[in-house]
Amino acid sequence: MPELRKDPVVGRWVIISTERARRPSDFNTEPVRARGGPCVFCTGNEDKTPPEIVAVRPSDTRRDGPGWSLRVVANKFPALRIEGDLEPAGEGLYDRMNGVGAHEVVIETPDHSASLATLPVDAVADVFLTFRDRIVDLKKDPRFEYVLVFKNHGEAAGASLEHPHSQLIATPIIPIMVSEELSGSQAYWNRKERCVWCDVIRQDRRDRRRVVAEAGGFIALEPFAPRFPFETWVLPVRHGSAFEDSGVEELRGLAEMVGTVLRRMNGTLGSPPFNFMLHTAPLRDGALDHFHWHLEIIPKLTRIAGYEWGSGFFINPAPPEDAAEALRAAVP
Amino acid sequence: MPELRKDPVVGRWVIISTERARRPSDFNTEPVRARGGPCVFCTGNEDKTPPEIVAVRPSDTRRDGPGWSLRVVANKFPALRIEGDLEPAGEGLYDRMNGVGAHEVVIETPDHSASLATLPVDAVADVFLTFRDRIVDLKKDPRFEYVLVFKNHGEAAGASLEHPHSQLIATPIIPIMVSEELSGSQAYWNRKERCVWCDVIRQDRRDRRRVVAEAGGFIALEPFAPRFPFETWVLPVRHGSAFEDSGVEELRGLAEMVGTVLRRMNGTLGSPPFNFMLHTAPLRDGALDHFHWHLEIIPKLTRIAGYEWGSGFFINPAPPEDAAEALRAAVP
Repeated sequence: MPELRKDPVVGRWVIISTERARRPSDFNTEPVRARGGPCVFCTGNEDKTPPEIVAVRPSDTRRDGPGWSLRVVANKFPALRIEGDLEPAGEGLYDRMNGVGAHEVVIETPDHSASLATLPVDAVADVFLTFRDRIVDLKKDPRFEYVLVFKNHGEAAGASLEHPHSQLIATPIIPIMVSEELSGSQAYWNRKERCVWCDVIRQDRRDRRRVVAEAGGFIALEPFAPRFPFETWVLPVRHGSAFEDSGVEELRGLAEMVGTVLRRMNGTLGSPPFNFMLHTAPLRDGALDHFHWHLEIIPKLTRIAGYEWGSGFFINPAPPEDAAEALRAAVP
Repeated sequence: MPELRKDPVVGRWVIISTERARRPSDFNTEPVRARGGPCVFCTGNEDKTPPEIVAVRPSDTRRDGPGWSLRVVANKFPALRIEGDLEPAGEGLYDRMNGVGAHEVVIETPDHSASLATLPVDAVADVFLTFRDRIVDLKKDPRFEYVLVFKNHGEAAGASLEHPHSQLIATPIIPIMVSEELSGSQAYWNRKERCVWCDVIRQDRRDRRRVVAEAGGFIALEPFAPRFPFETWVLPVRHGSAFEDSGVEELRGLAEMVGTVLRRMNGTLGSPPFNFMLHTAPLRDGALDHFHWHLEIIPKLTRIAGYEWGSGFFINPAPPEDAAEALRAAVP
């Protein structure tokens, strides 16, 4: 059974994922991927994945059979386990609980060589609609406090399979980075009675230097203090704290904007590996005046080394104003 | 001029390192290392580095000439610049200051193929004595609040040169990870009037399961909630908050313990790339009852991907009890 454990100094929880446990010798080399073998996410191999949780497919096709345009399945090697109770317990000065959670994979398209940059906007919109629907569904499980949606694209960004997919992990704990955004934005609200991200959008729209694009109710910008070169945030211009409250039209606007940003990154940076992460309000928080949901896109261009791990202080060789200028100049 | 910038939501500072700035096209591929060319850190190439700040060398040898056993030089591509004033300024809701700081390299040995795992203990002790002396020296500069000592060993851990070396960066800001340790340990002290790391050592010594080794006044252990497989902390058993207050005998004990841990890691994990980071109290804090200096050693065995970047929630496939058992069983 995987375990959740809390660091007694800084209060950071980690997942000790025994389902993925390996012996010391297994760490000796980078994990080897079966290349050339059949892709488990491709059409025709539906029996190679855990059963479908939901899918986008015509009504005359059968579950776990071909004909789908998008599938959601449980991760075959989940970081957390869906069954069981949390059973939080102390162990002297340490805190632990059972590693209960959901770990799902969104297979974004049957097309092995497509990507969110090349798929038609309707297909990309289906991906974001699916994220929304999975969050709404997982919210019904009272054990979960948070659902984090993310994507690893390319081996250097941590993807173990090439076929276009994203993932979500539901946890009984609010992740520390989200907590930090919540408390930072609450403190800002307490001083100003304004949402800090709304203020960022207002200031950067006037300033223009860090804005990559704006359309369909969304803005893409390079943050003022980015951790990574070409780190890009996509935010709804209108305030909203819960991603899962977004309507169909809104998510279509998001799909357009994410496609645009990824195509501009591909043009500027040579189709880099990347991650994206969706930051939305915790499941039980209702609508928050001080939190503004957003998608963080991070191309994988630099190595993170000892200074960053030891300090949390990131060294970024690309000023965001230069990155935004390059992305604006690229063909969308 | 590099810049320090603060994220307006979470308060995290980043270094926008214009001295290392690259054009977008430069990010397209992994940086290429000049292989086979002469190593700039080897004996005979002293003129290829910035001038020596200090060195361990016989008195009959000359500065920036051969004969040394250890050299400290400025980093040729510094993340921060030593000259200038901070000139902190606001820009609407953003905060910035000049990227003033020191970035130095400790060339640990003239032997290109040695490592801290293979060098004699006296040579390793010289490395730690040098860290101490550099911190004491940089403390005299009133602009600096913190010195973080770290090491990148191996390309996957971020090293751009093979020759054994470590680095330090002095900043006008206390890094956020150190701040979090300070406030977490202060909160623990407020409740218990005990140092949390002293309590960790007490509990883990009784428990044994996470202890790797103990000798010469130092203990090496796998933390209860490690972010990374085989993450190992080395702590002085006796409470102390400032690394730079350590005596010669103490640092010899540290050198022995670090050598032991690295040799055990090499045996267990096949000489992995690794980082280490020294966490000591801020320069201006004096002796703190609640902070306990320590060295964090992290072998680079897994990729960090979207979930970790988005959540701060690390997925660790190796329970620390299993890692400690494997390291205890290895030949030191």
